[in-house]
Amino acid sequence: MNIHILSLFPEMFTGVFGSSILKKAQEKNEVALNVVNFRDFSGNKHHKVDDYPYGGGAGMVLKPEPLFNAIDSLTTNKEQKRRIILLCPQGERFTQQKAEELAKEEELIFICGHYEGYDERIREHLVTDELSIGDFVLTGGELAAMTIVDSVVRLLPNVLGNAESHEKDSFSTGLLEHPQYTRPVEYRGHKVPDVLLSGNHAEIEKWRREQSLQRTLNRRPELLDQVDLSDLDMKVIKSLKEQQ
Amino acid sequence: MNIHILSLFPEMFTGVFGSSILKKAQEKNEVALNVVNFRDFSGNKHHKVDDYPYGGGAGMVLKPEPLFNAIDSLTTNKEQKRRIILLCPQGERFTQQKAEELAKEEELIFICGHYEGYDERIREHLVTDELSIGDFVLTGGELAAMTIVDSVVRLLPNVLGNAESHEKDSFSTGLLEHPQYTRPVEYRGHKVPDVLLSGNHAEIEKWRREQSLQRTLNRRPELLDQVDLSDLDMKVIKSLKEQQ
Repeated sequence: MNIHILSLFPEMFTGVFGSSILKKAQEKNEVALNVVNFRDFSGNKHHKVDDYPYGGGAGMVLKPEPLFNAIDSLTTNKEQKRRIILLCPQGERFTQQKAEELAKEEELIFICGHYEGYDERIREHLVTDELSIGDFVLTGGELAAMTIVDSVVRLLPNVLGNAESHEKDSFSTGLLEHPQYTRPVEYRGHKVPDVLLSGNHAEIEKWRREQSLQRTLNRRPELLDQVDLSDLDMKVIKSLKEQQ
Repeated sequence: MNIHILSLFPEMFTGVFGSSILKKAQEKNEVALNVVNFRDFSGNKHHKVDDYPYGGGAGMVLKPEPLFNAIDSLTTNKEQKRRIILLCPQGERFTQQKAEELAKEEELIFICGHYEGYDERIREHLVTDELSIGDFVLTGGELAAMTIVDSVVRLLPNVLGNAESHEKDSFSTGLLEHPQYTRPVEYRGHKVPDVLLSGNHAEIEKWRREQSLQRTLNRRPELLDQVDLSDLDMKVIKSLKEQQ
């Protein structure tokens, strides 16, 4: 997969793109990460990328030329499947399902604004997707882009090693994960639950499922509606609700 | 504000913490950002920070000692207001409201796991908050921590300059922002709407409000329930719904 990032702060990406899974994925040639400073494509001698909004108002607006020109410059095969993604608070909420969808593309281009709004023609005539990672205000789209890149690249074939892919994540069963414990058995007076030391695998599985159900019920009850629950699960939930 | 980050990948933070608003906030002494590798606090000669889960199962679990020890080592005044925040998918969803709450604290400590789960005693006896930035799987808590730090630090007094603070964000009015346009008037055949060039401020305001309402209705209709709408707004929405 080819990933291009258009940003005015390319230096922000160095640490994240040079570490951990993203570093390994590039070394294995599963992904190429290319960060472009779109100020280089301003098309004017002052390297200006933003200007005042038509109709008045505070704040600056990113001009269309630098972004259209930067994307034209990418030596991409326009026949291949590609998505041009604008990061903005008004965008569709990014989820794991979207990560799985993006992981099937051959090329992703991310556009990161910074403080400024975007000229609407960028939205209407350049991008294919607008995404947001959540209802909070960030200084720019850079952290959102890094977050999406991380979640997509780890889904590509051959990227995760054995250790990482064995991790149980909170979205694989549809329930939140049960508590985990490791050595030591007692730490600062706090002990591991006896059942986990019992060696009784059936009891351990039962305890874990109950804990998963309880945590999901307490923290994210809406998730329970989307999960296939057994009769036993339903009994556990009924009893947990009665205790509340 | 003092912010400490506990991570096994401290190099991931360099680019983000050394750029833009976070760089300026440190230069102005409004925030001190301290990244700690908690492997240095493992308490064992092999610098081991994780171990197999009690009760069996795939994946590794972060041991309690390195994190308890690392937090003990921070020369913090325990009398002051501080929060110890665990980044995990099971955590409470981070929002702008939470950012405003955290911006009032004197000290924030973030704990970033990587692949592994956390020993439950860390949740029960060490942390004050568990946060998640969304329903997607990341390689570690680092990007979530950077995201939260960015959104909190920009709320601290004196951090944003004039230019940045004038930015209208999508959460200030409760509606999504209206389209913005800047020079040139025509770009690749696409023109700025006439009303924005008219100089008629009342018409411009009316157009912008309608666009905001329309965009919110199309993309995030649930936001409309939480906004104070005028009679005129209600009429606009009724007419937009009839056109759909």
